Amino acid sequence: MYTPVMTADEVDALIARVYPQIWVDGGRSFAIEAIGPGPARLRMAYAERHLRPGGTISGPSMMALADLAMWVVVLGHVGPLELSVTTNLTINFLRKPAQVDLLADARLLKLGKRLAVGDVTLRSAGAEAAVAHATCTYAIPSS
Amino acid sequence: MYTPVMTADEVDALIARVYPQIWVDGGRSFAIEAIGPGPARLRMAYAERHLRPGGTISGPSMMALADLAMWVVVLGHVGPLELSVTTNLTINFLRKPAQVDLLADARLLKLGKRLAVGDVTLRSAGAEAAVAHATCTYAIPSS
Amino acid sequence: MYTPVMTADEVDALIARVYPQIWVDGGRSFAIEAIGPGPARLRMAYAERHLRPGGTISGPSMMALADLAMWVVVLGHVGPLELSVTTNLTINFLRKPAQVDLLADARLLKLGKRLAVGDVTLRSAGAEAAVAHATCTYAIPSS
Amino acid sequence: MYTPVMTADEVDALIARVYPQIWVDGGRSFAIEAIGPGPARLRMAYAERHLRPGGTISGPSMMALADLAMWVVVLGHVGPLELSVTTNLTINFLRKPAQVDLLADARLLKLGKRLAVGDVTLRSAGAEAAVAHATCTYAIPSS
Repeated sequence: MYTPVMTADEVDALIARVYPQIWVDGGRSFAIEAIGPGPARLRMAYAERHLRPGGTISGPSMMALADLAMWVVVLGHVGPLELSVTTNLTINFLRKPAQVDLLADARLLKLGKRLAVGDVTLRSAGAEAAVAHATCTYAIPSS
Repeated sequence: MYTPVMTADEVDALIARVYPQIWVDGGRSFAIEAIGPGPARLRMAYAERHLRPGGTISGPSMMALADLAMWVVVLGHVGPLELSVTTNLTINFLRKPAQVDLLADARLLKLGKRLAVGDVTLRSAGAEAAVAHATCTYAIPSS
Repeated sequence: MYTPVMTADEVDALIARVYPQIWVDGGRSFAIEAIGPGPARLRMAYAERHLRPGGTISGPSMMALADLAMWVVVLGHVGPLELSVTTNLTINFLRKPAQVDLLADARLLKLGKRLAVGDVTLRSAGAEAAVAHATCTYAIPSS
Repeated sequence: MYTPVMTADEVDALIARVYPQIWVDGGRSFAIEAIGPGPARLRMAYAERHLRPGGTISGPSMMALADLAMWVVVLGHVGPLELSVTTNLTINFLRKPAQVDLLADARLLKLGKRLAVGDVTLRSAGAEAAVAHATCTYAIPSS
């Protein structure tokens, strides 16, 4: 529905520059696999520090991935407006993730001038069923 | 409305035992200041790794704090059922946090046998206005 | 992913029997067009009493449609457990609906024994872009 | 925290003028009991058409009340900008309401120039425990 204005590599380079804390954390946990058209895809590497009691990936790790995936799809479509900020995020945790990488598919539902709304589906690599589903709103600064 | 069955120290010790990843991360970022009756209070120390572009505390750090605060208030009221898991979290980001510690006040709205629902208000230490507000549902395992 | 256990006509008859208030309100505003497999579809007839200032379909009418669509897809998949109740609903309003019928496509993300989670996309009849998107959790009573 | 700029009577008159569908529906189901400072309070009269299977007040009736209460508190604080629209609403249903009037206490968490965020607590008249809790964002048009 919407056409990106940046490539995955350009968004990756932008985030590495403006937000090194997240991008190189523990050796680059996150990779952008696609930016659109269609859903953007991120991959979060399976790592012990993402775990919670019971051995599964923690809720906060999944929320961070969902929020980052939405940020990536927004940046990819509005350009380098890195001060875009989340105003609302809702997440439902559906199933216990497997002990493998986690994939996030982020989709824009509405790209307005001031607000972007989308949803993000999280799946364990190699599986069909969603482990979590988030909806997210970003406020876009005036360019 | 509800009466805790564990003290702040007991919940602290439980989490240190079952979830060391979060509790000692970077030198113990989180402290339980109160467990109830009334709202439970957590404090997240201000630290550079919680920041996002623009110099403010990142959304994922605030979501992690809100989720943890809700977990603490649930554990404090149901006892050591550490496999309680978040099923739903909604957060609204309201204001730019100051460059100081962040306080989370978590309140139980409903403590059922299987589900606990509450809300969490995040404020910068020393300030009145909320920087974020979350509602959160936890599923409680059969004891 | 999930297979219905009731037909659209059977769910329609069930609701007409247990919930006549909604089904025959103002002359039957809602129709079930599909029950699955795949998304269930409901249609809400355009009617003046659904309008709000500015001439568009009101938020509460869209929320009622989303909630009903989720109830229909849950009933269609668990059978006549009409005491299934919503525990959580989140809706994002995306665009001004046109002055035509509204379609709701409801999809199950997770059908557990006690909780069902899904999302609902609302579109104006004949249009592609979503006017609203909801996620919804139902608690299913023991059968 | 915020000071109203309209009285309860003025908001009531405004809504009666711009949104007669809701206000006089079935003989005026809703009354504004307070507008602030502090939470605004609405009362929804107990009426058979608000019921769902099991004899309790329906989810859509509670969502309509929460959304209206938020609209009232927004209008009371920004003045007659009746084209303010909901962008996001999240509701948790907590307990079965009693067969009496329902009260809604709406509180502004943030009143910005373009967005207002608040929460609404619903209680059965005469009871302490919440039956539902909603958070809600309104977009405010340029005046």
